[in-house]
Amino acid sequence: MNEFMQAAIDEAQKGLAEGGIPIGSVLVHDGKILGRGHNRRVQQGSAILHGEMDALENAGRQPASVYREATLYTTLSPCAMCSGAILLYGIKHVVIGENVTFMGEEKLLKSRDVRLEVLHNETCQNMMRRFIAEQPKLWNEDIGC
Amino acid sequence: MNEFMQAAIDEAQKGLAEGGIPIGSVLVHDGKILGRGHNRRVQQGSAILHGEMDALENAGRQPASVYREATLYTTLSPCAMCSGAILLYGIKHVVIGENVTFMGEEKLLKSRDVRLEVLHNETCQNMMRRFIAEQPKLWNEDIGC
Repeated sequence: MNEFMQAAIDEAQKGLAEGGIPIGSVLVHDGKILGRGHNRRVQQGSAILHGEMDALENAGRQPASVYREATLYTTLSPCAMCSGAILLYGIKHVVIGENVTFMGEEKLLKSRDVRLEVLHNETCQNMMRRFIAEQPKLWNEDIGC
Repeated sequence: MNEFMQAAIDEAQKGLAEGGIPIGSVLVHDGKILGRGHNRRVQQGSAILHGEMDALENAGRQPASVYREATLYTTLSPCAMCSGAILLYGIKHVVIGENVTFMGEEKLLKSRDVRLEVLHNETCQNMMRRFIAEQPKLWNEDIGC
Protein backbone atom coordinates (compact mmCIF):
# COMPACT_ATOMS: atom_id res chain seq x y z
CA MET A 1 0.00 0.00 0.00
CA ASN A 2 1.22 3.44 -0.93
CA GLU A 3 2.15 5.25 2.30
CA PHE A 4 0.33 8.43 1.28
CA MET A 5 -2.92 6.63 0.42
CA GLN A 6 -2.56 4.87 3.77
CA ALA A 7 -2.27 8.29 5.44
CA ALA A 8 -5.47 9.39 3.64
CA ILE A 9 -7.23 6.21 4.81
CA ASP A 10 -6.01 6.85 8.36
CA GLU A 11 -7.61 10.31 8.15
CA ALA A 12 -10.88 8.81 6.86
CA GLN A 13 -10.92 6.35 9.75
CA LYS A 14 -10.22 9.14 12.23
CA GLY A 15 -13.27 10.94 10.81
CA LEU A 16 -15.40 7.81 11.16
CA ALA A 17 -14.32 7.39 14.78
CA GLU A 18 -15.46 10.97 15.40
CA GLY A 19 -18.93 10.12 14.04
CA GLY A 20 -18.17 11.74 10.69
CA ILE A 21 -18.17 10.85 7.00
CA PRO A 22 -15.15 8.59 6.29
CA ILE A 23 -13.30 10.46 3.57
CA GLY A 24 -9.66 11.44 4.03
CA SER A 25 -6.97 13.18 2.05
CA VAL A 26 -3.35 14.31 2.16
CA LEU A 27 -1.48 16.89 0.10
CA VAL A 28 2.06 15.77 -0.73
CA HIS A 29 4.98 17.80 -2.03
CA ASP A 30 8.54 16.65 -2.52
CA GLY A 31 7.89 13.37 -0.69
CA LYS A 32 6.41 15.05 2.38
CA ILE A 33 2.87 15.51 3.63
CA LEU A 34 2.08 19.24 3.71
CA GLY A 35 -1.47 18.83 5.01
CA ARG A 36 -3.76 16.05 6.23
CA GLY A 37 -7.53 16.26 6.36
CA HIS A 38 -10.85 14.52 6.66
CA ASN A 39 -14.47 15.41 6.07
CA ARG A 40 -15.82 17.51 8.95
CA ARG A 41 -19.45 18.05 7.91
CA VAL A 42 -20.74 16.37 11.05
CA GLN A 43 -17.98 17.33 13.49
CA GLN A 44 -17.93 21.05 12.68
CA GLY A 45 -21.27 21.48 10.93
CA SER A 46 -19.16 22.39 7.92
CA ALA A 47 -20.46 22.67 4.36
CA ILE A 48 -17.01 23.09 2.86
CA LEU A 49 -14.60 20.92 4.85
CA HIS A 50 -14.55 17.84 2.66
CA GLY A 51 -11.45 15.68 3.11
CA GLU A 52 -9.55 17.32 0.27
CA MET A 53 -10.52 20.86 1.33
CA ASP A 54 -9.47 20.11 4.90
CA ALA A 55 -6.08 18.84 3.70
CA LEU A 56 -5.61 21.99 1.58
CA GLU A 57 -6.64 24.16 4.52
CA ASN A 58 -4.30 22.37 6.91
CA ALA A 59 -1.42 22.78 4.44
CA GLY A 60 -1.84 26.54 4.94
CA ARG A 61 -0.99 29.30 2.49
CA GLN A 62 1.32 27.86 -0.14
CA PRO A 63 2.79 29.54 -3.20
CA ALA A 64 1.55 28.59 -6.67
CA SER A 65 4.85 26.81 -7.38
CA VAL A 66 4.25 24.28 -4.58
CA TYR A 67 0.71 23.39 -5.66
CA ARG A 68 1.87 22.81 -9.21
CA GLU A 69 4.33 20.14 -8.09
CA ALA A 70 2.06 18.62 -5.46
CA THR A 71 0.03 15.42 -5.50
CA LEU A 72 -3.33 15.16 -3.76
CA TYR A 73 -4.30 11.76 -2.36
CA THR A 74 -7.96 11.20 -1.57
CA THR A 75 -9.87 8.10 -0.52
CA LEU A 76 -12.88 9.00 -2.72
CA SER A 77 -13.30 10.47 -6.21
CA PRO A 78 -13.32 14.27 -5.74
CA CYS A 79 -16.66 16.09 -5.95
CA ALA A 80 -17.19 19.27 -7.97
CA MET A 81 -16.04 21.54 -5.13
CA CYS A 82 -12.84 19.62 -4.43
CA SER A 83 -12.18 19.23 -8.15
CA GLY A 84 -12.60 22.99 -8.51
CA ALA A 85 -10.02 23.51 -5.75
CA ILE A 86 -7.64 21.17 -7.60
CA LEU A 87 -8.10 23.26 -10.76
CA LEU A 88 -7.78 26.57 -8.91
CA TYR A 89 -4.45 25.60 -7.46
CA GLY A 90 -3.18 23.89 -10.59
CA ILE A 91 -2.55 20.55 -8.85
CA LYS A 92 -1.53 18.26 -11.69
CA HIS A 93 -1.68 14.81 -10.09
CA VAL A 94 -4.46 13.26 -8.04
CA VAL A 95 -4.44 9.73 -6.60
CA ILE A 96 -7.95 8.41 -5.87
CA GLY A 97 -8.73 5.50 -3.56
CA GLU A 98 -11.97 4.54 -5.29
CA ASN A 99 -14.70 5.89 -7.56
CA VAL A 100 -17.31 3.14 -7.32
CA THR A 101 -19.45 4.45 -4.46
CA PHE A 102 -19.26 8.02 -5.80
CA MET A 103 -18.01 9.30 -9.16
CA GLY A 104 -16.79 12.86 -8.89
CA GLU A 105 -15.71 15.28 -11.61
CA GLU A 106 -13.03 13.03 -13.07
CA LYS A 107 -13.98 13.90 -16.66
CA LEU A 108 -13.63 17.62 -15.98
CA LEU A 109 -10.25 17.10 -14.30
CA LYS A 110 -8.96 14.96 -17.19
CA SER A 111 -10.17 17.54 -19.72
CA ARG A 112 -7.96 20.08 -17.92
CA ASP A 113 -4.91 17.79 -18.04
CA VAL A 114 -4.93 16.65 -14.43
CA ARG A 115 -3.36 13.18 -14.19
CA LEU A 116 -5.66 10.83 -12.25
CA GLU A 117 -4.68 7.49 -10.79
CA VAL A 118 -7.57 5.40 -9.49
CA LEU A 119 -6.38 2.65 -7.15
CA HIS A 120 -9.68 0.71 -6.83
CA ASN A 121 -8.74 0.23 -3.19
CA GLU A 122 -11.00 -2.24 -1.36
CA THR A 123 -10.53 -0.66 2.06
CA CYS A 124 -11.76 2.67 0.64
CA GLN A 125 -14.71 1.02 -1.12
CA ASN A 126 -15.76 -1.00 1.92
CA MET A 127 -15.50 2.01 4.22
CA MET A 128 -17.89 4.03 2.04
CA ARG A 129 -20.26 1.13 1.27
CA ARG A 130 -20.72 0.47 4.96
CA PHE A 131 -21.13 4.16 5.80
CA ILE A 132 -23.74 4.75 3.06
CA ALA A 133 -25.67 1.63 4.11
CA GLU A 134 -25.62 2.67 7.77
CA GLN A 135 -26.23 6.41 7.35
CA PRO A 136 -28.10 7.01 4.07
CA LYS A 137 -29.80 10.16 5.39
CA LEU A 138 -26.51 11.80 6.29
CA TRP A 139 -24.91 10.81 2.98
CA ASN A 140 -27.85 12.20 0.99
CA GLU A 141 -28.40 15.32 3.08
CA ASP A 142 -26.54 17.96 1.14
CA ILE A 143 -26.51 17.06 -2.52
CA GLY A 144 -29.34 14.57 -2.50
CA CYS A 145 -27.76 12.09 -4.85
CA MET B 1 -28.41 48.89 -5.90
CA ASN B 2 -29.65 45.42 -5.15
CA GLU B 3 -29.68 44.98 -1.37
CA PHE B 4 -28.03 41.58 -1.56
CA MET B 5 -25.16 42.78 -3.78
CA GLN B 6 -24.79 45.66 -1.33
CA ALA B 7 -24.50 43.11 1.50
CA ALA B 8 -21.78 41.28 -0.49
CA ILE B 9 -19.93 44.58 -1.02
CA ASP B 10 -20.25 45.35 2.71
CA GLU B 11 -18.58 41.99 3.37
CA ALA B 12 -15.77 42.75 0.89
CA GLN B 13 -15.17 46.10 2.58
CA LYS B 14 -15.11 44.43 5.98
CA GLY B 15 -12.42 42.12 4.65
CA LEU B 16 -10.42 45.05 3.29
CA ALA B 17 -10.62 46.83 6.66
CA GLU B 18 -9.19 43.67 8.25
CA GLY B 19 -6.20 43.81 5.87
CA GLY B 20 -7.63 41.11 3.64
CA ILE B 21 -8.60 40.57 0.01
CA PRO B 22 -11.80 42.54 -0.74
CA ILE B 23 -14.17 39.88 -2.05
CA GLY B 24 -17.53 39.32 -0.40
CA SER B 25 -20.53 37.10 -0.88
CA VAL B 26 -23.96 36.27 0.52
CA LEU B 27 -26.14 33.19 0.06
CA VAL B 28 -29.82 34.11 -0.23
CA HIS B 29 -32.87 31.88 0.05
CA ASP B 30 -36.51 32.93 0.05
CA GLY B 31 -35.58 36.61 0.32
CA LYS B 32 -33.34 36.11 3.35
CA ILE B 33 -29.57 35.97 3.77
CA LEU B 34 -28.63 32.51 5.03
CA GLY B 35 -24.88 33.20 5.20
CA ARG B 36 -22.50 36.13 4.71
CA GLY B 37 -18.80 35.80 4.01
CA HIS B 38 -15.59 37.37 2.82
CA ASN B 39 -12.17 36.17 1.74
CA ARG B 40 -10.09 35.21 4.79
CA ARG B 41 -6.79 34.17 3.17
CA VAL B 42 -4.87 36.82 5.07
CA GLN B 43 -6.91 36.96 8.27
CA GLN B 44 -6.97 33.20 8.93
CA GLY B 45 -4.15 32.01 6.71
CA SER B 46 -6.86 30.15 4.85
CA ALA B 47 -6.45 28.52 1.45
CA ILE B 48 -10.14 27.73 1.10
CA LEU B 49 -12.10 30.60 2.66
CA HIS B 50 -12.82 32.64 -0.42
CA GLY B 51 -15.81 34.98 -0.09
CA GLU B 52 -18.26 32.50 -1.58
CA MET B 53 -16.90 29.56 0.45
CA ASP B 54 -17.10 31.61 3.65
CA ALA B 55 -20.73 32.51 2.89
CA LEU B 56 -21.55 28.82 2.27
CA GLU B 57 -19.75 27.85 5.47
CA ASN B 58 -21.53 30.49 7.52
CA ALA B 59 -24.88 29.34 6.13
CA GLY B 60 -24.20 26.02 7.86
CA ARG B 61 -25.47 22.58 6.89
CA GLN B 62 -28.42 23.06 4.56
CA PRO B 63 -30.50 20.45 2.78
CA ALA B 64 -30.18 20.00 -0.98
CA SER B 65 -33.64 21.54 -1.47
CA VAL B 66 -32.48 24.89 -0.03
CA TYR B 67 -29.36 25.15 -2.20
CA ARG B 68 -31.37 24.43 -5.31
CA GLU B 69 -33.61 27.43 -4.69
CA ALA B 70 -30.84 29.71 -3.43
CA THR B 71 -29.03 32.58 -5.14
CA LEU B 72 -25.36 33.29 -4.49
CA TYR B 73 -24.25 36.93 -4.70
CA THR B 74 -20.54 37.56 -5.09
CA THR B 75 -18.58 40.74 -5.76
CA LEU B 76 -16.15 38.95 -8.14
CA SER B 77 -16.52 36.29 -10.83
CA PRO B 78 -16.22 32.93 -9.01
CA CYS B 79 -12.93 31.02 -9.33
CA ALA B 80 -12.74 27.28 -10.09
CA MET B 81 -13.08 26.27 -6.42
CA CYS B 82 -16.10 28.47 -5.74
CA SER B 83 -17.66 27.49 -9.08
CA GLY B 84 -17.14 23.85 -8.09
CA ALA B 85 -18.96 24.50 -4.82
CA ILE B 86 -21.84 26.11 -6.76
CA LEU B 87 -22.04 22.98 -8.94
CA LEU B 88 -21.77 20.60 -5.97
CA TYR B 89 -24.69 22.21 -4.24
CA GLY B 90 -26.76 22.69 -7.37
CA ILE B 91 -27.10 26.46 -6.88
CA LYS B 92 -28.91 27.57 -10.03
CA HIS B 93 -28.53 31.36 -9.90
CA VAL B 94 -25.39 33.43 -9.29
CA VAL B 95 -25.25 37.24 -9.30
CA ILE B 96 -21.73 38.56 -9.98
CA GLY B 97 -20.56 42.09 -9.18
CA GLU B 98 -17.87 42.18 -11.85
CA ASN B 99 -15.70 39.97 -14.06
CA VAL B 100 -13.25 42.50 -15.50
CA THR B 101 -10.42 42.23 -12.94
CA PHE B 102 -10.76 38.44 -12.81
CA MET B 103 -12.72 36.06 -15.04
CA GLY B 104 -13.68 32.92 -13.19
CA GLU B 105 -15.27 29.72 -14.46
CA GLU B 106 -18.32 31.39 -15.97
CA LYS B 107 -18.23 29.22 -19.11
CA LEU B 108 -18.22 26.05 -17.04
CA LEU B 109 -21.12 27.30 -14.90
CA LYS B 110 -23.18 28.26 -17.95
CA SER B 111 -22.47 24.89 -19.58
CA ARG B 112 -24.09 23.30 -16.50
CA ASP B 113 -27.16 25.53 -16.71
CA VAL B 114 -26.33 27.91 -13.89
CA ARG B 115 -27.95 31.28 -14.58
CA LEU B 116 -25.38 34.06 -14.25
CA GLU B 117 -26.12 37.76 -13.95
CA VAL B 118 -23.10 40.05 -14.24
CA LEU B 119 -23.83 43.52 -12.87
CA HIS B 120 -20.65 45.29 -14.09
CA ASN B 121 -20.72 47.13 -10.79
CA GLU B 122 -18.20 49.97 -10.58
CA THR B 123 -17.76 49.79 -6.82
CA CYS B 124 -16.74 46.13 -7.17
CA GLN B 125 -14.38 46.88 -10.06
CA ASN B 126 -12.73 49.83 -8.33
CA MET B 127 -12.28 47.89 -5.10
CA MET B 128 -10.40 45.11 -6.90
CA ARG B 129 -8.40 47.40 -9.22
CA ARG B 130 -7.12 49.35 -6.25
CA PHE B 131 -6.34 46.21 -4.25
CA ILE B 132 -4.44 44.54 -7.12
CA ALA B 133 -2.46 47.74 -7.77
CA GLU B 134 -1.58 48.11 -4.09
CA GLN B 135 -0.90 44.45 -3.27
CA PRO B 136 0.13 42.60 -6.43
CA LYS B 137 2.24 40.08 -4.50
CA LEU B 138 -0.64 39.04 -2.29
CA TRP B 139 -3.04 38.83 -5.25
CA ASN B 140 -0.60 36.65 -7.22
CA GLU B 141 0.57 34.51 -4.32
CA ASP B 142 -1.57 31.41 -4.64
CA ILE B 143 -2.51 30.90 -8.25
CA GLY B 144 0.11 33.10 -9.84
CA CYS B 145 -2.10 34.58 -12.50
